[in-house]
Amino acid sequence: MSSVSSQPREAAGITVKKSEDFSEWYTQAVLKAGLADYAPVKGFIVLRPYGYAIWESIRDILDRQFKETGHQNGFLPVLIPESLLSKEEDHFAGFTPEVFWVTKAGTNDIGEKLALRPTSETLAYSMFAKWITSYRDLPLKINFWNTALRAEIKATKPFIRTSEFLWQEGHTVHATEQEAEQEVMTILGIYKDLIENQIAVPAVTGFKSDREKFVGAKYTTTLEGMMPVEGKALQMGTSHHLGQNFSKPFEIKYLGKDTKEHFAWQTSWGVSWRLIGALIMVHGDDKGLVLPPKVAPIQVVIVPIFKDKDAQEVKDHASGIEAELKRAGIRAYMDGRDEYTSGWKFNEWEMKGVPLRINIGPRDIAEGQLEFVRRDTKEKSKSGRNKLVETANILLEQIQSSLLAKATQLLQENISKPADYSEFKSTIEGKGGFALAGWCGRQECEVKIKEETGADIRVIPFEQKEMPDKCIYCGQQSKKAAMFARAY
Amino acid sequence: MSSVSSQPREAAGITVKKSEDFSEWYTQAVLKAGLADYAPVKGFIVLRPYGYAIWESIRDILDRQFKETGHQNGFLPVLIPESLLSKEEDHFAGFTPEVFWVTKAGTNDIGEKLALRPTSETLAYSMFAKWITSYRDLPLKINFWNTALRAEIKATKPFIRTSEFLWQEGHTVHATEQEAEQEVMTILGIYKDLIENQIAVPAVTGFKSDREKFVGAKYTTTLEGMMPVEGKALQMGTSHHLGQNFSKPFEIKYLGKDTKEHFAWQTSWGVSWRLIGALIMVHGDDKGLVLPPKVAPIQVVIVPIFKDKDAQEVKDHASGIEAELKRAGIRAYMDGRDEYTSGWKFNEWEMKGVPLRINIGPRDIAEGQLEFVRRDTKEKSKSGRNKLVETANILLEQIQSSLLAKATQLLQENISKPADYSEFKSTIEGKGGFALAGWCGRQECEVKIKEETGADIRVIPFEQKEMPDKCIYCGQQSKKAAMFARAY
Repeated sequence: MSSVSSQPREAAGITVKKSEDFSEWYTQAVLKAGLADYAPVKGFIVLRPYGYAIWESIRDILDRQFKETGHQNGFLPVLIPESLLSKEEDHFAGFTPEVFWVTKAGTNDIGEKLALRPTSETLAYSMFAKWITSYRDLPLKINFWNTALRAEIKATKPFIRTSEFLWQEGHTVHATEQEAEQEVMTILGIYKDLIENQIAVPAVTGFKSDREKFVGAKYTTTLEGMMPVEGKALQMGTSHHLGQNFSKPFEIKYLGKDTKEHFAWQTSWGVSWRLIGALIMVHGDDKGLVLPPKVAPIQVVIVPIFKDKDAQEVKDHASGIEAELKRAGIRAYMDGRDEYTSGWKFNEWEMKGVPLRINIGPRDIAEGQLEFVRRDTKEKSKSGRNKLVETANILLEQIQSSLLAKATQLLQENISKPADYSEFKSTIEGKGGFALAGWCGRQECEVKIKEETGADIRVIPFEQKEMPDKCIYCGQQSKKAAMFARAY
Repeated sequence: MSSVSSQPREAAGITVKKSEDFSEWYTQAVLKAGLADYAPVKGFIVLRPYGYAIWESIRDILDRQFKETGHQNGFLPVLIPESLLSKEEDHFAGFTPEVFWVTKAGTNDIGEKLALRPTSETLAYSMFAKWITSYRDLPLKINFWNTALRAEIKATKPFIRTSEFLWQEGHTVHATEQEAEQEVMTILGIYKDLIENQIAVPAVTGFKSDREKFVGAKYTTTLEGMMPVEGKALQMGTSHHLGQNFSKPFEIKYLGKDTKEHFAWQTSWGVSWRLIGALIMVHGDDKGLVLPPKVAPIQVVIVPIFKDKDAQEVKDHASGIEAELKRAGIRAYMDGRDEYTSGWKFNEWEMKGVPLRINIGPRDIAEGQLEFVRRDTKEKSKSGRNKLVETANILLEQIQSSLLAKATQLLQENISKPADYSEFKSTIEGKGGFALAGWCGRQECEVKIKEETGADIRVIPFEQKEMPDKCIYCGQQSKKAAMFARAY
C-alpha cells in the first residue's frame, strides 16, 4: 500500500456526526463522496462524474416521462435582453436583484445589457408568440434541460443553494384554462412519482400562498420535503399555472375553431439538482451517502478480496458476477484495483453510498457463496452464487422501500399541530419541522409569522383534512390549513 | 381545410433552389423544417423540438461511445474568472476578442469580471489540479455536454456560426505523452465513425497547421468536410494534444510509481451542432431536409389517406403499422391529424426530411399492400403488409448508404490538384473545393495564400500519398501535402 499522502482525498472519512453538525456533515458528504467541488467563482460548484451520474439518472427518468406525456425538448440561449426580461413586471421585479448581467463582448460595451437566464419564461414566450397562430399549433409542450443563474448572496450549499444550477424548465401553451390546469397536475404527478418512488423522499403537495408563488404565476403548486436534524423544509419542485399573465404581454394568441383570436393559457414547471441535495440529507449517515437504488449510478459494487497468489482467480470470478448482473440490467461495478486494500475500498464505496456490496474471496468461491452487505442497514447476508441476480434484485428492492419508509417516518414525525401561537413558536424555534396550522389567508399574518419565527408558508396542502378553527397568528377565522416551516 | 393564413408557416415550401441561392436555401430549409429560429439577441438561435431531437440523436450516439471508452460526464459553471482564463497566454489571446463578460450582479458591479465560457480548459484544469495527486488518479477522462459562447461579428448562420452553440468538450489527463496521443486518435476515430456512418458526411482527417491549431495546443487533429454548391470546407470536429502546455501553468502534477512528481499530459476535443449544419447542407434538396436514417428523429412517417367515411378504419390500420415499427425499434410516427390534407402532410414531411414515408389508404388495406416513398430519391415502391418491418429496414439501410455514397462522390469531385499557383487561384476562386497542394511548411506562404485567395490550410491529411515536389506558393521544397480551401 501507498503512503497516505498520495491517496485521493476521498479516502479520509467524514469527521463529524450527522446528528451533531449537520451542515458540516453535509458538506463533507458531498465533497468526500466525490459528487461536487467548489468552483473558482464564489457561489458556484463543479459536478464531478459521480455527482453528474446521479443527475443523469434523474434526468433520464424524467425525460422518459415527459416524452411519454407528449413533451419535447428544445434549446434556448442563456442570454436574455433586459427589455424582454422586464416585459412582465412582477416577474422582472422578482428576479432582477439576482440577475447576472453581460455588459461587454470582447473589449466593446454592448448596447442593451443582457441577463444570464434566471429562468426562461420571457425568452421562450417571445418565441412561442411567433410559432403559435392557430388552434392547430396547440398544445405546445416544450422542456429545456439547462442551467439557471441567480446571484446568491447567502452562503453556498452544494445542490441546495448555488448561483448556477442544473435543472429542467418546462413551458406549455394551451387553448383553455382547464387544459393548463390539468397540465399543472400531470407534471406535479410526474414529480411526485420521481421524488417518492425513485428518490425515496416523500413530499407534501399543495399550493403556495400568493406571497410565495412564482412571480408572474396565477398560482404555484409545490412539493415540499422535510430534511432531518435541522428540521427545515426543502422545496423539491414546483409547477405553475401562469393563467394569461404572460400570454397577454407577450401576445401569445391563437385563432380558434370559432375563427376568433384568443389569448392562450400557460404553465411552467421545474425541478433542479436540489433533489440530489435532498437525497443526501435524508438518506445519508455518519459514513457518508446512502443512495436509493433507483437513482444510484452504481447499484452493486463487487469487491474481490484476494492475496497476490489468488488475485487473478478471484478477480475473474468477480468479473463474472459483474457481467451477470449487468446482463440482468443491474448497474454493477467490479472494483479490481490493485493499489487499494479491500478495507479501503469498503470505506470508499460506503462513503459513495452504493446500495449493495458483494464481497467475494477464495473461500466464497470454493463454497459457491456470496456475501451481500446492505449499505443502509450494514446487514450482511450470504446467498448461493446461483441466486446472484435474484438475491441482488430482492435486496435492492428492500433497500429502496426501506429508505422510503424511513423517510416517510421522518416526515410524519416532523409534522406538528400546535394548539396556539406560543406552541407554534416554540416548535419552530425548537425541533423545527412543519407546523400545520390555521391561517386566515391574509398576507399580514404570514409576514408577521415569518418575521417573528423565520417560518413561512411552505405549502397549503391539497388535502385539507382537519381545518383548524382559527388563524394561528391573529385568531380570526381560519381559511386554510397551512404547513409552516423554516426552509433552505 | 382551413384558410392559408392560419396554417403554420412551415407549410410554405422553400422558394429558392439549392443550386441557385445556397445561402438563402439553407436558411429557409432550417426555418421551414422547424429546426431552429432566430433568438431576440443577434447572433443567437433557439432550437425547436425537431432540431433538438437531431442533437439528441447525435448526443446519444457519442455519449454511448464516450462511456464505452471509459469517459464520464461532469458539469462546469458557465462563468470563468478573467485571471483563470488568462493563465495560459496564447489561449487567452486567442479567445479574448470574442468573450462575453459579466460585470454586474443585480445592481452591483462585481469585482473581477467573469467570462462566459468560450471553452472550459482553464476552468476544468484548475479543478483537475485539485483532484489529481497520484498516478492512481490517472487517466482522468471527463466530458461536458454544454454550450460555449463566443461573440460573433460575422453574419449568423444557424448551426454553422452562432454566438452560443451546443457542443461537447472532452478533457483528459494522462501519465504519459503516448497515452495522450492515443486518446487524441481514439476520439478522432469516434468522431469519424459518427460523421461518416451516422451523419453520412465523409471527412478528411489530419493535422491542422500551427497557425490554425487550437490556441494552447501542441497539435490539433481535425475532420474537414466539404459542403456543396459554394465549395467551402466545414470543420466538423477537432481533437487536440495539449502536451504539457496547460498542466504546467495549472500545476497538474502527479506522484508517479517512481515516487517522483511529474507534470501530466492532456487532451481536449469537441464537436458541436455544426454537424447538423453539415448534414443539412450536404443531403438537403430543393424540397428541404433529407435526414440520414441513423440520426433522424422520425425514420418512418405513416400518412393515412382517407375520406370522412373510412377515416377511423384507415387511421386504426396506420396506428397498427406505427406500433409494429416501434416494436421493431424503428422511430415511426403516424400523422393522423384531421386538420390537414394528405398532400399538405406529404409536403411537410418532405420539408422535414423524414427518410421514409408510408402512404396507406383503403385500397392498400384491401390489397394487403403498403406504398413506401423514399425521401432521398422520391422513388415509390409497393410491399406486402406482412413484410413491413423487413422492407422498412432494407429501405432505411439503402437510404443511409446511398446518402453516404453521394456525399463521398461530392467530396471526391471537390478535391483538385492544381499544377501551379495560378491554377490553384482559379480553382479556389472558381468552383472552390479542396486544393491539395505542396507546402514548404512556412507560415509566410500560408498567410500569403490566405490573403490572396481566402483559402487556408484546412487539414494536412494523415495520408500523405502523393507528395508534390514544390510549395504551391514559393516553389521551395514541399514538406507537406496540404488541403487548402475557403471555409465556413
